[in-house]
Amino acid sequence: MSFDRLIEKIIETKNPTVVGLDPRLEYVPEYLQKRYLDDDGWSLKAASRAIFSFNKLIIDEICDIVPAIKPQAAYYEMYGHHGVKTLERTIRYAQLKGMYVITDGKRNDIGATMEAYATAHLGSVKIGENEIEPFGADALTVNGYLGTDGIDPLLKICKERDKGIYVLVKTSNKSSGELQDKLIDGTPIYAVMGDMCEKWGEDTIGKYGYSAVGAVVGATYPQQLAELRQRLPHTMFLVPGYGAQGGGAEGLKGAFDDNGLGAIVNSSRAVMCAYQKEGCDERDFAKAARREVIRMRDDITSYINLK
Amino acid sequence: MSFDRLIEKIIETKNPTVVGLDPRLEYVPEYLQKRYLDDDGWSLKAASRAIFSFNKLIIDEICDIVPAIKPQAAYYEMYGHHGVKTLERTIRYAQLKGMYVITDGKRNDIGATMEAYATAHLGSVKIGENEIEPFGADALTVNGYLGTDGIDPLLKICKERDKGIYVLVKTSNKSSGELQDKLIDGTPIYAVMGDMCEKWGEDTIGKYGYSAVGAVVGATYPQQLAELRQRLPHTMFLVPGYGAQGGGAEGLKGAFDDNGLGAIVNSSRAVMCAYQKEGCDERDFAKAARREVIRMRDDITSYINLK
Repeated sequence: MSFDRLIEKIIETKNPTVVGLDPRLEYVPEYLQKRYLDDDGWSLKAASRAIFSFNKLIIDEICDIVPAIKPQAAYYEMYGHHGVKTLERTIRYAQLKGMYVITDGKRNDIGATMEAYATAHLGSVKIGENEIEPFGADALTVNGYLGTDGIDPLLKICKERDKGIYVLVKTSNKSSGELQDKLIDGTPIYAVMGDMCEKWGEDTIGKYGYSAVGAVVGATYPQQLAELRQRLPHTMFLVPGYGAQGGGAEGLKGAFDDNGLGAIVNSSRAVMCAYQKEGCDERDFAKAARREVIRMRDDITSYINLK
Repeated sequence: MSFDRLIEKIIETKNPTVVGLDPRLEYVPEYLQKRYLDDDGWSLKAASRAIFSFNKLIIDEICDIVPAIKPQAAYYEMYGHHGVKTLERTIRYAQLKGMYVITDGKRNDIGATMEAYATAHLGSVKIGENEIEPFGADALTVNGYLGTDGIDPLLKICKERDKGIYVLVKTSNKSSGELQDKLIDGTPIYAVMGDMCEKWGEDTIGKYGYSAVGAVVGATYPQQLAELRQRLPHTMFLVPGYGAQGGGAEGLKGAFDDNGLGAIVNSSRAVMCAYQKEGCDERDFAKAARREVIRMRDDITSYINLK
């Protein structure tokens, strides 16, 4: 009912990073694309199967050194229900390989509808005698604009099933400040949202001091990262924006506590497309992903004190 | 590139309402559930097929008198990728029957990821030589917490393909005020978000005066509805919370302009489960839905001046 399971994997692998699996068909090497070409040309199903194969080979190469993956729902929905099936299969395969899975869906709604999202992504649905997990991720990113009504159904499932959520607090994009930096009685909205995370999580704090309610805080805003780390002592951070979006490793220091915990840093495209950047044989794409993951781990851990 | 297509259907049917198709298996009458029972007991696939059949029969009964449906993505995701397939089929079937479809997904993200959502729900994806619409809805609800970066990719598709979006402004739930009512320099956040909708929509205004960027404003807050109608003259409202959530028809008056346009009011459970409330034969569920839709239309139009 906290993020202990994830934190233990971070300690075990000595690696506070997560690989974002946000695949587009264009990222899949051609030899692998061709293997799934349907007789009747390309279809959403063929694309989705090629993408699963791509994900699987990357997971195989990184599962011993990376604690978690973060599939982004948008890239799977882009291939319709076949893509969504690939999301399901990716989640299950990564868990089978011992990884923790954070579905990045930024879901949000109220009451019974939020319950349906919570059930879909973290829970199980009862169908006659059967109890089935539709997606079965370990954690889900959510948007807190609707307030407590939108979070309560998630907390219930987090407690019952040892799951977690990450609430958008300060996002990594350029225009995130349009709303998030505006002041309410002198306090920026992102800090108000952060305070809500502390409150939502208060009775789910685990043995490392972090609750089941984390916050998404972008690597592109190092000052806010450090400020929020101080302000939100029980809120674990999911940090996008490292690398591709311009956030450097040194700026991430402030996201971590004195034990090198309290944050997990995401990288997506730099890992998935490492083979393109390296210019290596496309058949080595998964090995290139592994090399990038190691480079990233060493880069980030050189600034923190993870025991 | 505005909401003209929807507004024309509203005028044609003289009915500014939309039916939320947010089905749970429990809503499906038993006789219909049984028809889809798999040999190996209930599965996500069987449940999803039963739900599609339920949706289809309701659509058949209401398509001549209701301009639009609003399927809520959460209830389809709850049945995994099979449920998502039912979402696809429901969208296509309703469009085939001449209805406008608003997918209620409250999606949100930035840059390339938001582009993927926009492509998934409103656009088309290129796979080899093929250009395929994964979901192909007419409009999508979205959450604007991330600012302009999260909206721009949608605007592009709205313009290219004559689609629309509804941005969460003031939601219908009890705790919506926790964040949305907080003041920024004396202006509540929901009004700031509303102003952003006006701005995002400014170059997509159609012949009825409304842009392609609408706002979600709950029926449960009649004062804010009326205030926002004045403040946001080019922003069409999608109004949830009528009936079940406690918003009455009289309170909705303020959501409409002098021509009875500018808003569309949603009802979900009261329509889907009308047969339970009526206590009629469950085989008449779709006819009961039609009766409820007519009741709702007459209730709401008695307060407005729709020509």
